[in-house]
Parts: sequence; structure tokens; C-alpha cells
Amino acid sequence: MDTKTLMARASGKEKATKVFKNARLLNVYTKEIEKVDIALEGDTIIGTGTYEGKETIDLEGAYVAPGFIDGHVHIESSMVTPERFASLIMPHGTTTVIADPHEIANVTGKKGIRYMLKCAKRTPLSVKMMVPSSVPATTFETSGATLSSKDIDAIKDLEGIFGLGEVMNDPGVINGESDIHEKLTIMKDRPIDGHAPGLSGLDLNAYILAGVMTDHECETTDALLERVKKGMYVHLREGSQTRNVKDLLPAVNKNTLSRLLFCTDDKHPEDIKQEGHINYNVNLAIKYGIDPIDAVCMATLNAANCYGLKDLGAIAPGKKADFIVFDSLKSIHPNMVYKNGELVCENKKMLVDIEPYQDKALEHTVNIKMDDLDFTLFLKHNRVHVIGLNENNITTKKLIKSVKTKEGIYQNNEEDDIMKLAVVERHRASGNIGLGLVEGFGFKHGALAMSIGHDSHNVLVLGDSDEAMERATRNVVDMQGGIALAERNGRVQALQLEVAGLMTKAPHKTVEKTLGEMKETLRIMGLNETIRDPFIQLAFLSLAVVPKLKLTDRGLFDVDAFKHIDIETKEDE
Amino acid sequence: MDTKTLMARASGKEKATKVFKNARLLNVYTKEIEKVDIALEGDTIIGTGTYEGKETIDLEGAYVAPGFIDGHVHIESSMVTPERFASLIMPHGTTTVIADPHEIANVTGKKGIRYMLKCAKRTPLSVKMMVPSSVPATTFETSGATLSSKDIDAIKDLEGIFGLGEVMNDPGVINGESDIHEKLTIMKDRPIDGHAPGLSGLDLNAYILAGVMTDHECETTDALLERVKKGMYVHLREGSQTRNVKDLLPAVNKNTLSRLLFCTDDKHPEDIKQEGHINYNVNLAIKYGIDPIDAVCMATLNAANCYGLKDLGAIAPGKKADFIVFDSLKSIHPNMVYKNGELVCENKKMLVDIEPYQDKALEHTVNIKMDDLDFTLFLKHNRVHVIGLNENNITTKKLIKSVKTKEGIYQNNEEDDIMKLAVVERHRASGNIGLGLVEGFGFKHGALAMSIGHDSHNVLVLGDSDEAMERATRNVVDMQGGIALAERNGRVQALQLEVAGLMTKAPHKTVEKTLGEMKETLRIMGLNETIRDPFIQLAFLSLAVVPKLKLTDRGLFDVDAFKHIDIETKEDE
Repeated sequence: MDTKTLMARASGKEKATKVFKNARLLNVYTKEIEKVDIALEGDTIIGTGTYEGKETIDLEGAYVAPGFIDGHVHIESSMVTPERFASLIMPHGTTTVIADPHEIANVTGKKGIRYMLKCAKRTPLSVKMMVPSSVPATTFETSGATLSSKDIDAIKDLEGIFGLGEVMNDPGVINGESDIHEKLTIMKDRPIDGHAPGLSGLDLNAYILAGVMTDHECETTDALLERVKKGMYVHLREGSQTRNVKDLLPAVNKNTLSRLLFCTDDKHPEDIKQEGHINYNVNLAIKYGIDPIDAVCMATLNAANCYGLKDLGAIAPGKKADFIVFDSLKSIHPNMVYKNGELVCENKKMLVDIEPYQDKALEHTVNIKMDDLDFTLFLKHNRVHVIGLNENNITTKKLIKSVKTKEGIYQNNEEDDIMKLAVVERHRASGNIGLGLVEGFGFKHGALAMSIGHDSHNVLVLGDSDEAMERATRNVVDMQGGIALAERNGRVQALQLEVAGLMTKAPHKTVEKTLGEMKETLRIMGLNETIRDPFIQLAFLSLAVVPKLKLTDRGLFDVDAFKHIDIETKEDE
Repeated sequence: MDTKTLMARASGKEKATKVFKNARLLNVYTKEIEKVDIALEGDTIIGTGTYEGKETIDLEGAYVAPGFIDGHVHIESSMVTPERFASLIMPHGTTTVIADPHEIANVTGKKGIRYMLKCAKRTPLSVKMMVPSSVPATTFETSGATLSSKDIDAIKDLEGIFGLGEVMNDPGVINGESDIHEKLTIMKDRPIDGHAPGLSGLDLNAYILAGVMTDHECETTDALLERVKKGMYVHLREGSQTRNVKDLLPAVNKNTLSRLLFCTDDKHPEDIKQEGHINYNVNLAIKYGIDPIDAVCMATLNAANCYGLKDLGAIAPGKKADFIVFDSLKSIHPNMVYKNGELVCENKKMLVDIEPYQDKALEHTVNIKMDDLDFTLFLKHNRVHVIGLNENNITTKKLIKSVKTKEGIYQNNEEDDIMKLAVVERHRASGNIGLGLVEGFGFKHGALAMSIGHDSHNVLVLGDSDEAMERATRNVVDMQGGIALAERNGRVQALQLEVAGLMTKAPHKTVEKTLGEMKETLRIMGLNETIRDPFIQLAFLSLAVVPKLKLTDRGLFDVDAFKHIDIETKEDE
């Protein structure tokens, strides 16, 4: 549109193309509710006030807020591709995400990031893609790819690449290691996300000085306030497993507000369906006493300010027409979601159907020779280290237990709650298998295998018989990725995750339904009732950076000692 | 410094180079006071907390705040060059200014902007230089230069050029005129300042949509709140003439705070000396009940956020070491000012002396042929339009008066308070002289001439005898710019402003002293006691965009009718 016409329409001398009449607008700048019309041209808001339009939509006094922004999310954790992910979250009012494709990058490197960019572009969702900074996350497991500073330099100017993903290697940063500092230098003029659980004091200063500007790992108000004081923006995270919003709300007040935003990090489709997405963070905040407009600010303007998204986060002249329409300030559930001026969701349903982009090269990533597979666990003696679950937490306990052996081979014991865990390297068919024992899952007579295993995503197999473990693994290999539950009776339930072994191109409903059914079966098999999500609980048992005892394809790993250890205890233990 | 060492010092493993112990830090992020040490390496703050330093400075519990930012200033209004200006304002705690060299650009165009950049670079002051958007401000007077969109394109990438200066032509913006929209398009990814007194409603929407992000012309809380609601940042201005802070403070609260900042716009050296600079805005806010830390936020973090100055506005890891040390939160007067980690002011004195940069080409800008000069005012009849002063305001009244004439020539009348005003074109020796009459100055028996006359800066001459007017003008021409006061007794007092006729390279004390003496003489001559600053009062009589009656080198100008008019009234008037 020519400038003269645009100005004539914004200033009301001509009718605007589209006008929303009678909105109750949540003004994020003054934290007031205004009764106004909102005028649009194309994807842009040209003004608020009293307007006449060629097309008018009467909102009849409904509330209008800017579209929500998820400040940090791994789309892969939804187990659906970005197209399906958009359909999953946009009905809940999220119109923009800062996405870190850390998981797919660990499997397929730059190829995976390019794939995510291509998928994201097909959706109405704004996806600001970070380049993962920490691939692989550790050197204690075999990953599918490495992203060096040279790799980051090579892709940083691709369309859609926005900033540097969560910097996990805080000891590396603080010790001045060149690899991570090269990455920080390359991306120094872009947003750089942090990940610094437990970091504080002068070490935190060094981490911030290095260029890291956010953290989403706060679990206490003290941690949050220290970060805000030192100039960081802090995400209040509410994911499937990590639920921090309620604990952090006491630190939210009018003084700190502008430095706080929301994220989900990792959230499974069934949780999104049941609870919502960023609107769930907002609603939790409202429930616990935060002013609804302040809560909305955290989900909109604050996130936009944090990431320098000048045309997002508010409803004002010149901003993108991303907004939601809803009825109640007690709990926000959008009736309508507009993205770039177009109605994309109505009554919690996505109105556009996007066929996923296909890249066959990403659908053959489970590279295991089945003939090599052997889950036999030889033990020198029967007093062993066992991983103990901390329920609904990705940390674990380091237990010592006595187990049954026969001729130096571990034997399952129906009387205890210990199961065998295997991590099967799946990127280069190396034949690496890490074997260990876990206590706490509670189910019997079967095995669960999955190609999601943080962060290198080797195949994790948990079971009480080698036969079932092999059957579950074979199923995952045959599907070229996914989750398989093999029962003693021969039945196998499976969810195929063919894209890098992490995501499916199928609609998110398939994931919700299949995982729901598998969880039901696991409950019947005896799954510990306190375990909210057995798949997440399993997927993090290989993450060697979170205490205390983990298992990688190279064996048992003691996180506190920061080294691999034997399963068998030493004499002095 | 290598990264390893920097990280070791930030994290306290090695001693930092410089540590300020026992600060009471005004934390702009949480609005709290923290007792901390502040560690520096070079020009950068590496951390706050408990530090040991190679050099330590014990602040003994003194307050520390970030250096202040003036969000909008015309350095030329101080009548000293940027080097001298830095010495004038930095002792009051201002360490960064967003400067619009609108005045010198009206005289000398791009050359003047380059000159200002060179001067600014010699000072410790951070000068973020805007390209003036509105040169000339109007087409009703003869200016020394024009800055077209092509000119702006040509200089926009010069080192130090920051954004687009105040967009004055709001009707042009709203009507979609190509010249101003071309400028807006060229600078669309940079900060763009506004100037929109009285603009509101849908016209304001169009103005913001066009890309303007700030306004410093608010005089009422309604105007301020409307701008904030629509996404603008608003400056609370306190200059020599325009004093808005007190009127706007009722709109400052915890909800609006983050969108508000301070500026001076135009402030004379004697006012800066007496009151202070941005600290005066802060102190006024404190005096009228704003929380001191909130007031400091407006002068620091908010301005930095508004202009995207990521490394300024706070004391935190990675920020530039710009800060002030002071004793009282009731009224902030820094004892010490640090800029880029160096002590630059102590006890209200600048510690570094910077010799001004010299560009001889800018010192010959008063181009008037004295032989052409004739102040004779011919009148067809004696009922005439007279400019009436509004005291301490740049607006004027349109009066009708009867005056004394002799053979069709205006005669001064000792009995009235009317003086003759001339605007002598001085850029191209065109011989243009605009002649008019003014009521309200009150002084007698002399003439005041000056080469400051907004915005084209022709020579303004005010007097009650043609002889004294000629003498004062000749003095300004001989000095190649300045202010000259000629008395009937033959005495002439003068302040040379040799740089573009606007600024002197002499220290600011010279300006303060000379103007003080001249003002004293004017008082003796009868200057109306209510006129705070006769020089400012005179300098704006040529500004043809502010109501109601003004005089340019092309004649009397009726701002409401937006056209030149005759001095003599028409029969129906």
C-alpha cells in the first residue's frame, strides 16, 4: 500500500480495511483496560481509537490482548514437527516462540536446524530460531553431531536464525574456554540465552559478562532476584516436568515485573491440551494473585523487550496484528487468535491445516545393528550402584543395592523394584551399549524403549527381561525412531517418531492418543502412581549434566564426581 | 585482555584491576539499594558483590547510580562547542546525550554535523548524534542549508550517527508527503525522535505508525498518557524555557514508569550552572514525591531501553563503567563522576580539559553586506500588527496598535513599550531584511543583535534606534557571529559565537559571565522584570511554526493563517 493511503487510513480520513469494534484492550504500556476500536491494514495494526472499516468485526466488549510469546521452547519435546506444534499451541494464544532446536541438532546437526527453519516457515507461528550453543551437551556420550563455532558461523545468517541457544556449559564460560567463547563472540550482537541452575555470586557475574542475557532455570526467588539485579531477564518456566511458576511468583512485583517473562521449555502435547501453553503460565500467575494485566505483560511486552522484537508484544500503531480475544480475566482461554491480521484459531481449533514438510534424510537416524544387541549384564559381585528416581524430577539418587546374580550375570528379581536400563548408541552403529539398573518405575513384565534420550538421543531401553527389551528396541529401529512398549504377552504398542527419532509428522492428536494408551498400559503393568510422565522420567536418565547418577552409551556416570564409574561398588563404599 | 583473565577476574579468582568498595548501589532493575563492591576492568563493569582489587577505592557507603542520559538535547543551545558542553554538564552527572544538531545543520548543513561529530569524539561524553530530519524547519525563511533525504542517506553511516532527529513536520508525515517519508524509511531501523505538540487521536496514530517512537513536547498528563498507551516513550523535559517536569509528574507511576525518560532540549549554561542538568529533572521529580530510585531509572535505564543502548543505564556485569557517586537521595549532586571507568569529574569540576576542535570553514557564516543595511520601516498607515510577548514562552500574541509615523516612516515612541525588530538574512548576503514591531521587552536606548534566531539563525536585531541597531549588527558581523548589546552611550558588550554564529570555543564560564553582564545591563536599561532570559525570548521570535505572530527575513508571518502578512492592518481588522 502506498504511504499516502496508509497514512489516510491510520488518521481516519479513509476507511481502514479491517476494524475490530468495541474491544476491551489490555494496554501493556499503562496496565489499564481501554475501550477502543482496533484498525488493521494487512498484517499491521495502524491504530486504536474510534475507526470505521470496510470490514468491521464487533467484539462486543470482549477482552483483547497481544499474542503470547514463549521465551524458550524446544519444539522437539512436543514430539511433533513445527507445523503440528503450531496447531497445538496457537489455539491457546501463543503466536511467537523463541525456539532452540537443541534436540534435533544433537542428532542431525546443521541439517536438523535447516529442517526446523523450513518447517517453521510453513506455519503462521513466528518462530525465532536460536542456534544451539551446546551440541553435544557433554563429551560423556556419543552424539549424532557436533556444532562447532565454525558451524555456527556458517549458519548464523540463514533466514530465521535469531540468536544463540541456551549456554549450558557455564563452567566452560567461567573458565574462559575458547570453544564456547568463540560462539559467544560470533553471536554477541544477538540475543543469547542462558541455562545456569545453581549459579550465583561472582561466577554468575562472569557468565553475564560473557554475554548471556537470560536464564530460565530459576527454582527460587533468591536465584531469580539475583539474576534480575545483575541485568538478566528471567523466564518463569512451566513445562511438563519442570514447574517453577508458583515458586517464583513471590518475586514478581511492580519493580521487578519488566524483567520477567514466561516459557515452557519442554512440554508434552497432552499437557498442552489439558492445561494450555503460555496462557497456562499466565493463568497460574493470575490464580496466585498477580494482576492479570501484569501477567499478560510478562507473556507479551516483556518477552518482546527481552528479545528486541520491536513489532511484537503490544497492540499499538505499527505493531504486528497478533492478538487474542477472550472473555475472562480470571483464566485466559482465547476464543479467537489473530496472527498477522488473519484469524488462525477459533474456539480452540486451528483453522488452517498445514501439511508437514518432508525431508527423507532426517527419517533414517536410528542406526543400530540388531545382531550386535546384547543386554546381558555381567557383574563381578552383587553389590551395585543403582539409579534412584526422584519422582517428577530429572535429578536422580545414587543408591547402593544388592541384586540377584547367576554365574556372574544379573538376574531380574520379581520381589524388588529394580529394572535394567540400557542406552544403545544409535547414530553410528558403534555397538556401544551402556547398561545399568534403576529403582522406582514400578512396572513389571515388559520393556519400554525410546529414541528420545537427552541430550544425545540414543535409544533408552528399560525392562525386566532381555527378550522384551530386545523386542521394544527392534520396534524402535524398525520405525526409525519412536517409543515402543513391549509386554510379556507379545503385544507391542508404539508411537513412531520418524523425524530424527524425536518427532512425528502425524497430527498432535496421534501423539496424545498413543501416549495416553501406553501410559494406561504401563499403569496396568504397575507403573508407580506418583510418576506423572514415565516417558519424560525415562528420557532424562541419560542426561549426564544433571545429578546424581546417570547412564550413557558409555556406561554409568557419576555427575558429582563428573566421571564414569563401575556398576559394582568398590570395597570402601 | 584475554578472555581467560577477564573471566578469572569477574569470577573473583584473580584480583580485579579496580574495585570500588562499600557502595550503596541504586539498582535500577529491582529499585532497591544494595550494599556491594563494584569491580572494573578498563571501561567495563565486570561484577558487583564482594571483590578484591589491585586498586581499591573505598566509597564508605556513598550512593552510586548509573550516569545520567539526556534523551534529547540541542548542544548548540548551550552556546558552547561539544567539548565545552561536556565540561559543563558532566559534573552534574550526565554521561550520555542523544544530541540533535538541528541548529548548526540549519546554518551549515552536513558540514556542521561532521564538525559536531569530530568535536564530540574528543570528549569523554557519549554523544549519540541524530541526523536532523527537519532542515529547514519551514520554507518561510531563508536557511543556510537544506538536508534532503539524499543528504541523510549520504551521512547516515558516518561513525557516531545514531538515529533521526525530532520529526517536526507532523502534517507532512500524516499527509504522506514523500520527502519526510523517505527520511523515515532510510532511518527506519534506527531510533527516530518525535516532536508533536498538540497531536492526538488518529493523527497521532499515523505519526507513530510512520515510525516515530518518542515525544518530548508533552505539556499535559493527558498528552503523555495517550503517547505511552500507543507505545511511545515520552521525555519529561526541563530546559531553560520549556519546563514540563512538574506538570507531567502526576502521570508517573509504577505502571507507566518504564516508558518515561528525561531531557533538557535547550538549556543555557547559566541555568545548567545554577540548577544542574539531567540531575535537575531527577531532583525535581524527587522533590515532588517520586521515589528517588524511580526518578533515577528515568534518567538511566529507561533512556537506555528507549534508545537501545544495551551497555548503558545500569551498573551490572558487562555495562560501561559510567556512574556517579553522591551523598543524598533528597537531591542528587555527584561528588564524583566516572565515565568509561575513569574519574572525569570531582567536586563539580571537570578534571580533563579538552581543547576544542577547530574548523575555520565554520567560522565565517555571517554573510551580510553592511552597505545594504537599512532598518527604515515604511508604513502606509499607522495602525499596525505588533508581536506581543508571552513572557517566558516562545509563543506570541498578535496585537494591533497605533504607532507614530513621520512622512510614512515609523518613529520610535519613548512613551510606549514597542521596539523595532529586524531579521537580517545572513547566509547568502541576499539583502533580505524582515522588519516588524514587538511589544513587551521594556528596555530603552539601545539595541540587541544576535546570530541565533530559530531555526534558520538569521541575525535578529531588536532596538529603539536605527543607529544602535546598525551598531549591534555590525558587531555581530565583525565577530562572525554572536550576541551584541549596543547602548546609546556608544558602549557595546558582546559575546562572540564564532562557530556557525551559534557557539563559542571559549569555556562555558565566558558565556555565563558575558551573558550575565549583558543581562544586568539590559535590566538597567529597563528590561521587563518578568523576562527570565531575554536572549531566548528574542531567539524564538523568528520561529515560524509556533503561534501566533513571528518575523522572518521575508517578513511578518501569521502562524495561524500560515502565511506572510503586511505590518499594516487591513481596513476590516
